[in-house]
Amino acid sequence: MKDILVLGAGLSTTSLIKYLLKNAKEYDWHITAADINEEMARKKVNGHSRGKAVIFDINDDLESWRTIAKADCVVSMLPAFMHHLVAKKCIDLRKPMLTASYVTDEIKKLDGLAKKAKIPILMELGVDPGIDHMSAMRQIDKIKEAGGELTSFYSFTGGLIAPEYDNNPWNYKFTWNPRNVVLAGKGVSQYIQQGRYKYIPYFRLFDRVLTRKILQYGDFEAYANRDSLKYREIYNIKNIPSMFRGTLRRPGFAKAWNIFVQLGATDDSFRIENSENMTYRNFVNSFMRYEPNVPVEIKLQDYCSSAADPVVFEKLKWLGIFDKRKIGLKNATPADILEKLLEEKWKLDPDDKDMIIMQHEFKYKNGIDERMIVSAMAYIGKNQDDTAMAETVGLPLAIATKLLLTGKINKIGIHRPVEKDMYEPILQELESFNISFAEKEYMLD
Amino acid sequence: MKDILVLGAGLSTTSLIKYLLKNAKEYDWHITAADINEEMARKKVNGHSRGKAVIFDINDDLESWRTIAKADCVVSMLPAFMHHLVAKKCIDLRKPMLTASYVTDEIKKLDGLAKKAKIPILMELGVDPGIDHMSAMRQIDKIKEAGGELTSFYSFTGGLIAPEYDNNPWNYKFTWNPRNVVLAGKGVSQYIQQGRYKYIPYFRLFDRVLTRKILQYGDFEAYANRDSLKYREIYNIKNIPSMFRGTLRRPGFAKAWNIFVQLGATDDSFRIENSENMTYRNFVNSFMRYEPNVPVEIKLQDYCSSAADPVVFEKLKWLGIFDKRKIGLKNATPADILEKLLEEKWKLDPDDKDMIIMQHEFKYKNGIDERMIVSAMAYIGKNQDDTAMAETVGLPLAIATKLLLTGKINKIGIHRPVEKDMYEPILQELESFNISFAEKEYMLD
Repeated sequence: MKDILVLGAGLSTTSLIKYLLKNAKEYDWHITAADINEEMARKKVNGHSRGKAVIFDINDDLESWRTIAKADCVVSMLPAFMHHLVAKKCIDLRKPMLTASYVTDEIKKLDGLAKKAKIPILMELGVDPGIDHMSAMRQIDKIKEAGGELTSFYSFTGGLIAPEYDNNPWNYKFTWNPRNVVLAGKGVSQYIQQGRYKYIPYFRLFDRVLTRKILQYGDFEAYANRDSLKYREIYNIKNIPSMFRGTLRRPGFAKAWNIFVQLGATDDSFRIENSENMTYRNFVNSFMRYEPNVPVEIKLQDYCSSAADPVVFEKLKWLGIFDKRKIGLKNATPADILEKLLEEKWKLDPDDKDMIIMQHEFKYKNGIDERMIVSAMAYIGKNQDDTAMAETVGLPLAIATKLLLTGKINKIGIHRPVEKDMYEPILQELESFNISFAEKEYMLD
Repeated sequence: MKDILVLGAGLSTTSLIKYLLKNAKEYDWHITAADINEEMARKKVNGHSRGKAVIFDINDDLESWRTIAKADCVVSMLPAFMHHLVAKKCIDLRKPMLTASYVTDEIKKLDGLAKKAKIPILMELGVDPGIDHMSAMRQIDKIKEAGGELTSFYSFTGGLIAPEYDNNPWNYKFTWNPRNVVLAGKGVSQYIQQGRYKYIPYFRLFDRVLTRKILQYGDFEAYANRDSLKYREIYNIKNIPSMFRGTLRRPGFAKAWNIFVQLGATDDSFRIENSENMTYRNFVNSFMRYEPNVPVEIKLQDYCSSAADPVVFEKLKWLGIFDKRKIGLKNATPADILEKLLEEKWKLDPDDKDMIIMQHEFKYKNGIDERMIVSAMAYIGKNQDDTAMAETVGLPLAIATKLLLTGKINKIGIHRPVEKDMYEPILQELESFNISFAEKEYMLD
C-alpha cells in the first residue's frame, strides 16, 4: 500500500482528493489529507475508508517532518511561498513531490539536491501553469516532428464566470485568489514579436490589450501575462520570432480596471493613515488633486479620460467607489482596500459556475507553406465544489500522481510537464473528463 | 590635538575638507582624508601640514577598524548604503559620527546602541536633507514662539545648472548623482492638503507639477518629493493640515521626462536581452506595439500624446533617442541605458556652474490674522570644484563638526539638525558664506 499525503485541503483540492480516493482501491493507495484546519481536511476525506485527515503546520518543524516521513508521495497544495519548505523536507526524506505551483528561482536552486536524493519534484501541474504547457508542447512537438518551423506562438488563458451566470457590468467574478487579481501585472510584461523585444510597464499594460473570439463563447480581450520570453527556453523554441502569453477577460474589463491602475489604487507598497475611517469616496479622492469644489466623479473623468466613457463609468459606479461608506480596514494598503471592496462585489452567488478558457495559436512554416493552428479549450465548473478551477488544477495533478506511483513517469529533479512522457498520458486522461482541445488549421496567405 | 577622519574624498567633499583644513590650526585639528582611491584623498589634502591621506575600504574590516580607532571624530561622505557599517564601528569604538545622508530605517535601529555608547550620530547635515531642515525649523520655531499656528508648509529644493550656463532644451544638466535623477520619484509620493491625504503613484508624478517663481531666477516647476507626511513628526508639526515637499526643475522638464516614465524607460527591475547591440531607436521602440510601417517618432506621439507637443518632441530629439546608434551596454536595465545617454547629453561643460535653489512657504494663523512667509535661498557654485552642491552639502557638515568638537553641540544618539542648538549656529555661520535666506511676509485675505 502507498500513502499519498495531500498538503492543504482548501477549495482547490476538492477534485484532486476525490480522484485519489476514487482510485485508491484499484491502486492500493491510502490518502492522508493534511491541513492546518483539521476539520477542512476531514470534510474532503468525507469518511472514506482509505482516507484520513490530519493537522499539518509546515512551521511545526518536527511534526511536519514526521507526517512527511510516513508518506510515499507528497502532493502540495499549500500556498506557493511554502513549497520551498516542503521541497526541502521531501528531499531530506527522499519523498517524491508534486505541485501545481510555479517553479520559482528559490525552488530551482533545489534541483541539484533533488537529483542527488534521486527524487522527482514535479511542478506546474495545474491548469495555468500546467494544462497550458502540456497542450502547447503536444502541438509544438507535433509541428516539429512533421518538419515544421514555428514562427509564432500566442497563448491565452482566463479564469472567468461561466456565461450563464455572467450578470454584472464587469463580466467578471472572483473564481480564484482575489489578491492575485488585484496585483496582476505588477512589474514589466515582456514578449517578442517578429524578433523585436517588447516591454510593457505595469501602468500601460491594461491599455495594450488584444482581442479574440474563442470557440462559441464570443469575445474576449487579453493583456500580456508577465514574462513570455522565458517560455522560449522552457518550450525549447529559443529562436521563435514571436511569442506572447496573455490573460483573458471579457471585453471592456481592462479599460475600466486601468482606472484603478492609473489612480494608484492597486498599490501594495505603503499603508494609508487612518484608513479605517476613510470612505471609499475619500479613497478615490486621495489619488487626485485637492479641488474641493469639484465632485470626485468629475475629477476622476478629468484625471483619467477613459473614466468619461459611460461604459467604464457605469462599471466604477456599480462597485460603489464613490460611496460615502466607511472602509473599516485598519492600516491598509490601497490594494487591501480595493480587494475588500471587490470581494463584496465580485463574489460568486451560491449557484454560480466558473469557466476556464484557453486558446493557443501556432504559426509555422513547412517548406513554402505557412499555416496556423488554433487550439482551444473551455471547461465549465459543475458546481461550487467541483469548480472549473478545482477540476482543471486538481485533475492533471492527480493523474500525474497516479502516473508517478505506477512507474509511468520516471524522473529525478525538478520538472515541468513539457516532455511527452508526462503531457501525453495526462492530456489523454483529461479528455475522459471532457477537458480537451478543439483544433483548427488554416492556411496563411 | 583632535583627529578628524573624513571618509570618502569624492567631488562632494571639496568644500568640507577645505573648511576643516582652513580651521585646523585655530582649533588644533588634524584631518585624515580617507578614500578607497588614495590619490583622490591626497588631492583633497593638497599637501596641507595638518592633513594626511590614507587608503580606506569599509569592507576591509580590520583596517577600517584601525583607521576609525585613531580618530576623535568621523565624518562619513561614503555612499549612503555604507553608513550603516560606519555607524556600527563608530558605536563600538565610541567615536562621534557626522554625515549628510538620510536617517534610514536601518540606521535608526542603532539609536539605542549609540545612546548606550554615549556618542552622537548627527545626520542629514547637507543641503537636502540638511539646510532644508534647518531653515524650515528656524521659521517654524519662530512662528510657534510668537504664538502662531502653522496651517501650511510647502518646501521646494532643486539642484540645477546656473542660469548663465543653462543652454540645452531641457534646461537641466547633471550636477549630482545621475542615477538618482533617473530613478527619482519611484514608489508613491505622499503629502497632505487641507487635511486630505494625497498619494501620487510614480507614473502620474510628472503630470502633477506645481509652478513657482523664485527670487530673481524666474519660473520653476516642482514635483512631489517622496513622503512629505513623515516630516510632520520630524518637524514637530504633527497636526498641520497641509504639508508638501517638492523637487524643482525648470518649466517643461516634467512633461518631457514623463515620456520616459510612460514608456517604462526608467525601469531598473529587469535586464534587456542583447542590449549592447540595440540602438537607441530600438530601445524606444521596444516599449511600444509592433507596427513596422509606422516610424518610431509617430508611434511615440500616438502612444504618449504629450510627445506631440513640439516643445517636448524637440527635447526628446535633442537627446538622440531616435538615433540608429548602438547602445553598447551589456545586460543593461532600461534605467542603465537612459542614464548612459543622459550622461553624454546632460554633462557639465568645463566652465559650467551649478545652482542650488530652495523655497519654503509657511502659512500661519495668529489670532484672526492669517499670514504667509516665503523664505528663499539660491546659491551658485564658484567653479567645478567648489560647486554649489559641494558647498551647500559640505559647509553645514563642516560647521557641525566644529560645533561638536568645540562642545557647542551636546547630544547622544541619532539626530537631525531640527533643534535650535544645532540649526541656529550652523545657519548663522552659513550666512558668512553667502548661503542665506531672503524672507518676505504677506497677509492672506
